Amino acid sequence: MTAAAPVAARPVIAPERYGARLEALRERLRDAGADGLLVGPGAELVYLAGYEAMALERLTMLVVPAQGGAVLIVPRLEREPAESSPAVRAGLATVRTWEETEDPYGLVAAALDSDGAVRGSGPSRLYVGDRSWAMFVLRLQRAFPEASFELASSVLRPLRMRKDTEEVALLRLAARSADRVVAAVTAGPLVGRTERDVAREIVARLIAEGHDHAEHSQIVGSGPNSASPHHTASDRVIGAGEPVVLDIGGSLGGYASDITRTVWVAGPAGTEPDLGFRAIYDAVQRAHGAALSVARPGTACEAIDAAARRVIAAAGHGPHFLHRTGHGIGLEVHEDPYIVAGNREALAPGMAFSIEPGIYLEGRYGVRIEDIVVCASDSPDVLNEAPRDLRVVAG
Amino acid sequence: MTAAAPVAARPVIAPERYGARLEALRERLRDAGADGLLVGPGAELVYLAGYEAMALERLTMLVVPAQGGAVLIVPRLEREPAESSPAVRAGLATVRTWEETEDPYGLVAAALDSDGAVRGSGPSRLYVGDRSWAMFVLRLQRAFPEASFELASSVLRPLRMRKDTEEVALLRLAARSADRVVAAVTAGPLVGRTERDVAREIVARLIAEGHDHAEHSQIVGSGPNSASPHHTASDRVIGAGEPVVLDIGGSLGGYASDITRTVWVAGPAGTEPDLGFRAIYDAVQRAHGAALSVARPGTACEAIDAAARRVIAAAGHGPHFLHRTGHGIGLEVHEDPYIVAGNREALAPGMAFSIEPGIYLEGRYGVRIEDIVVCASDSPDVLNEAPRDLRVVAG
Repeated sequence: MTAAAPVAARPVIAPERYGARLEALRERLRDAGADGLLVGPGAELVYLAGYEAMALERLTMLVVPAQGGAVLIVPRLEREPAESSPAVRAGLATVRTWEETEDPYGLVAAALDSDGAVRGSGPSRLYVGDRSWAMFVLRLQRAFPEASFELASSVLRPLRMRKDTEEVALLRLAARSADRVVAAVTAGPLVGRTERDVAREIVARLIAEGHDHAEHSQIVGSGPNSASPHHTASDRVIGAGEPVVLDIGGSLGGYASDITRTVWVAGPAGTEPDLGFRAIYDAVQRAHGAALSVARPGTACEAIDAAARRVIAAAGHGPHFLHRTGHGIGLEVHEDPYIVAGNREALAPGMAFSIEPGIYLEGRYGVRIEDIVVCASDSPDVLNEAPRDLRVVAG
Repeated sequence: MTAAAPVAARPVIAPERYGARLEALRERLRDAGADGLLVGPGAELVYLAGYEAMALERLTMLVVPAQGGAVLIVPRLEREPAESSPAVRAGLATVRTWEETEDPYGLVAAALDSDGAVRGSGPSRLYVGDRSWAMFVLRLQRAFPEASFELASSVLRPLRMRKDTEEVALLRLAARSADRVVAAVTAGPLVGRTERDVAREIVARLIAEGHDHAEHSQIVGSGPNSASPHHTASDRVIGAGEPVVLDIGGSLGGYASDITRTVWVAGPAGTEPDLGFRAIYDAVQRAHGAALSVARPGTACEAIDAAARRVIAAAGHGPHFLHRTGHGIGLEVHEDPYIVAGNREALAPGMAFSIEPGIYLEGRYGVRIEDIVVCASDSPDVLNEAPRDLRVVAG
């Protein structure tokens, strides 16, 4: 494996960006007549404060009141990492700690009411992080019985969808790193190894190629397993003369990679793909191209989905394209905008998403091709560079 | 690195166990007068159905009605992995899929009402997974406006806390694997490397030693960073003549490892630890022993915490022991029972938890020693075997 990409070369989200994000959020909260937003560990907290908090059963919560300063509530033993977070260091949020046997929900109430605006009646409308755990949501509802709760994404999604320059640069670094892993893994050996073993190699290579993190649930679908879109990796041994779907990714500098390539493993006898496989590969590749060709500012997300679906339907495989054409990507591997029927959201420059049509013939095989794309003012910026033509590899 | 532990040697949770767990749960639901339990991807779903689902924005939910069969609701593209899950294969749950543009909450309602018991009025009391995301909780509350929602742990925790033989065997495999990683990493080199670089090595070694998964947030705290209990790993370069806290772990066969060792890195000049460091190390080690000595059936969790705290207070460092003495461990790295003041739960055979006292002198250094322990009818079963005496390593 090659050496890790030098960490110092990574773009950094400047502190002012967090200030701008928090200010834009406060404006939206006031427009919505809400009292504040409450988000726990995860992408929302990273987006607003640059704080990569551990997801613990102990409450960690950034409270952004519509009026007043943001407060980051953390268990006492998280004080140091919380105080080192970019937003706190830049003076954009203050840290409040709670002791191991203390109730932290009183601190949330105080943070919401730093200027006394909601005192007495308590908050009436709160946004809570989409991925905050039920254990926190139910306790917040108990702490604020008069408040209605809504999902943070309704105010955050318009902000998070459009990536700034540094975010696109990080997505590109992640994509290129994943490209190199696809190249290395498909160079083989593959035949005779279990899918799980190949998945382990993928995780190790993603880390070696500069990713900070890669889930063990990498998709390695060989032979008939390639026909299950979300098959992960099993103890099935990869054989000669069959396809392998590799759908892999992790995160680098907080930003996700996600690429899919389907290769045909010829094996020692050089078993070529059959005509049926070539036909579905061709249809998926053309669908990918069709989606890409309409991915420009102003196009509705559902129109991109329709462009891919039309090609696959014309090839007679409409019912075998089992999923949407894509998903937004950024701090989360799946986020807005979703490239799916019914989503009339118009693309705008800076939106980053996958284009990943597929055809799945149950019991036989399947094909998927996925790239990450950023909407630009002219032609779409395709972050992945791994070849998309059908590759027959020795394996 | 040594070869991975052979996967085939791993204990497997037998299908009957899932049947017994579901039956015990139903009994508790009926006792509580609840209509059912709803859990999404994560430990609860693995515990009840053996299904390691991807955590997606698409609803995946196991519905266990108080009366009637369990139903596993999954997006259509998850059908194959859902149908391959142990509980489904054993006929203990049926799979219902939903299409990409469909609303899955109607399926939840139908699954809760398979025998028509709650028809008309709708469910009145539901348990929802503690780590289910707000995006699902708020939508469930909207779908069942008459229902009160409570956390699944109130019915599941008594079941999950007491591990069965296979669970203990998996925890032991994970612990021994982590022990080997501690041995390899402390063998050096350490001096001149960043904490982050050492953390990457730890992740790679955990995987190589048989773990399926290891978060990148391994704790490597060198020099003054050792005084921050939840410091993760920074770009600080490890020097000679300072301590390093390694708090590491991942999961193997679904079960978590979690071990902490603090070593003194002497470096080329052989710089020995100062007396102050030796004194706090000694106090932490004695606190660890004191906690262990009372960890037997019938002891209240808070009494174990008190035993450790007493030793550290007597050494004059009470205020520097910033956290509880331990946490339960199993499918989650932190779960019940918590070894903390106020928890009067009595230990019972099969309960697995950490014992991890620490002393943290801000700006100088800190020490923590952590092992995973299983309560047994006689003496406690300490799963970790890495040496606990102060080790001065060359680094």
